[in-house]
Amino acid sequence: ISHESVAEAAGTTMEQILGRKHRKSAIDALALGGARILDDLYRKGMVCGALAVGGGTGTHIAATMMRVLPIGLPKVIISTVVSRDVSPIVRHKDITLVHAVADIAGLNFMSRKILADGALAVMAMVDNAFEASGDHKVIALTSYGPLNQCAEFTSKELEKLGYEVVPFHAVGSGTMAMEDLVGQGLIDGVLDLSLHELVDALYDGYCKHIGDERYETPGRKGIPHVILPGGLDMIAFECESLDGVPERLRSRKFLSHDFRSFVRTTAEDMRRVADILAEKLNRSPRPATVIIPLKGWSKADGVGAPFYDPAANEAFVNQLKKSAHGNVVIKEVDAHINDPACAAYTAAELHALMQKVL
Amino acid sequence: ISHESVAEAAGTTMEQILGRKHRKSAIDALALGGARILDDLYRKGMVCGALAVGGGTGTHIAATMMRVLPIGLPKVIISTVVSRDVSPIVRHKDITLVHAVADIAGLNFMSRKILADGALAVMAMVDNAFEASGDHKVIALTSYGPLNQCAEFTSKELEKLGYEVVPFHAVGSGTMAMEDLVGQGLIDGVLDLSLHELVDALYDGYCKHIGDERYETPGRKGIPHVILPGGLDMIAFECESLDGVPERLRSRKFLSHDFRSFVRTTAEDMRRVADILAEKLNRSPRPATVIIPLKGWSKADGVGAPFYDPAANEAFVNQLKKSAHGNVVIKEVDAHINDPACAAYTAAELHALMQKVL
Repeated sequence: ISHESVAEAAGTTMEQILGRKHRKSAIDALALGGARILDDLYRKGMVCGALAVGGGTGTHIAATMMRVLPIGLPKVIISTVVSRDVSPIVRHKDITLVHAVADIAGLNFMSRKILADGALAVMAMVDNAFEASGDHKVIALTSYGPLNQCAEFTSKELEKLGYEVVPFHAVGSGTMAMEDLVGQGLIDGVLDLSLHELVDALYDGYCKHIGDERYETPGRKGIPHVILPGGLDMIAFECESLDGVPERLRSRKFLSHDFRSFVRTTAEDMRRVADILAEKLNRSPRPATVIIPLKGWSKADGVGAPFYDPAANEAFVNQLKKSAHGNVVIKEVDAHINDPACAAYTAAELHALMQKVL
Repeated sequence: ISHESVAEAAGTTMEQILGRKHRKSAIDALALGGARILDDLYRKGMVCGALAVGGGTGTHIAATMMRVLPIGLPKVIISTVVSRDVSPIVRHKDITLVHAVADIAGLNFMSRKILADGALAVMAMVDNAFEASGDHKVIALTSYGPLNQCAEFTSKELEKLGYEVVPFHAVGSGTMAMEDLVGQGLIDGVLDLSLHELVDALYDGYCKHIGDERYETPGRKGIPHVILPGGLDMIAFECESLDGVPERLRSRKFLSHDFRSFVRTTAEDMRRVADILAEKLNRSPRPATVIIPLKGWSKADGVGAPFYDPAANEAFVNQLKKSAHGNVVIKEVDAHINDPACAAYTAAELHALMQKVL
């Protein structure tokens, strides 16, 4: 594959790319062209794995290209820049990073070992087939620390009903992997126990890194989608004291957790979040079910707990009822989100929807 | 291996560990105990590879343990926390990171794939022997961007003389991998083209992340060590403009590079660096050779170049002569560091020292 054809795939020419003033803009054009060519080869069934070697620039280009490939298709990058922040490289994908240790420049005892390690690893992964769960229907479950009991109880209920549960951390990039797998058709139903990422996205909080497609893929794929408002009572910040919280929020109820702290959300926040969610679900060709636990939405939100505020929570429900255009079924359960009763109710609701699909 | 024996290896007991107030201190004790047990098993010849699975805490403990193993011995961590800053996990070691994508909690189609990928990768790496270069003597070469030509010319000269050259980036962690490999006995001679890390360490600059053993391992292992003062003319900061430079340095000569900027060092800096280097080399049982290129020490330091300051450079040489106790041989070459003449001279000097070893 020539430089020229990569440039052409990016809708430009090598001449134009070489004339660009900014190195980054030239690199990004080639990465885009490369990604399009790789995507095309994959769609033609010609790709069973991806292997790349690079320094800073090469790793950036390789990762941009590899991210067009589905999760489960082996991706290995041998890179000199592994000992740093690799979130822009990996994002939510299953990219394996092999640290080059020495510079990649010619063959020597070190590079021979590392280059062979990377090649052997990707070959072994290609031989290890990625297969959807044959007999069991798969439920993707997204949860969040202050809902751990909810996740545990609900998983057990679903497993008793014969489902395979795949858990994801609803703290940003984790759930984007879930949306990706739903898009790939590998998930049969989605149980979003947490909407917490939506409030963090509003306030630049700890779990803000969700993509535009968050909460939308299940509807688009036409699979059952059950949602609980877990964690909507709190905005999370990566700080140990009130000083780390944005100034305008410092008069609110505050809770120190570990390296993170929580701030209580207001009725106004709830209305904004309800509108965002309704807009997302209204686009769906298939209704989603939102289950409201009436006695609190996280470990911090319940009778006697520091963030207990039923009026604020009610604002969410009322606004959702107003903004959702018939594509949202709202159900209520007289329990706390972490109660076994909530788990049983939720699992039964999802199971009923799954039965209809069958 | 029981919890109790891990605690014992860390010089404590599980009772004491469970009684600690800070979670981190308990985790660190267990990681230390685990590392000691792993090191012991490795020394007994019982370890050919390491594989771990973890979330945040598990990855921290696994990496702490694995870092006691030598470079070249396969190390793979399947982790939920790959999409972030992994420098505290990887450091300068050859640790391969497999991104778990979903949470690690029970077996499902996703975890089965990823867990098997990691296991297969480490098995493939174990089968791929890490061998020192049999016929060729190995020279580790450390370089730095503004000395690229020096590195290129010197490598070619050394390869012509029959050496295998393993290049390392002298920008912090890269050279610590080199010191590690020297300690493992895999390197026959060291050519440090750059001393730049020393000035960055003084000023909290971009390449500051060197360990205490930097520049000391070759002497301790008794192998030839040739050093050039490459990059001593500049302190590097990760910023694009003067605003990113510490205030007290803003009146100095300034140069914008890419995402990094450079500030000229003074005669006073040179004297401090010479003392630090002399102290390190004085400890050595074997003399090191320092070659001084008289016409400049980086792309920015030469006749007509922005950082040209022969008086400052001379301060380094004079101070080194004063502080070094006979364990440093200082040679001068009438060339710029990036000139082919400097490369030829340097390669010949190192070759002569290597001949003596033979």
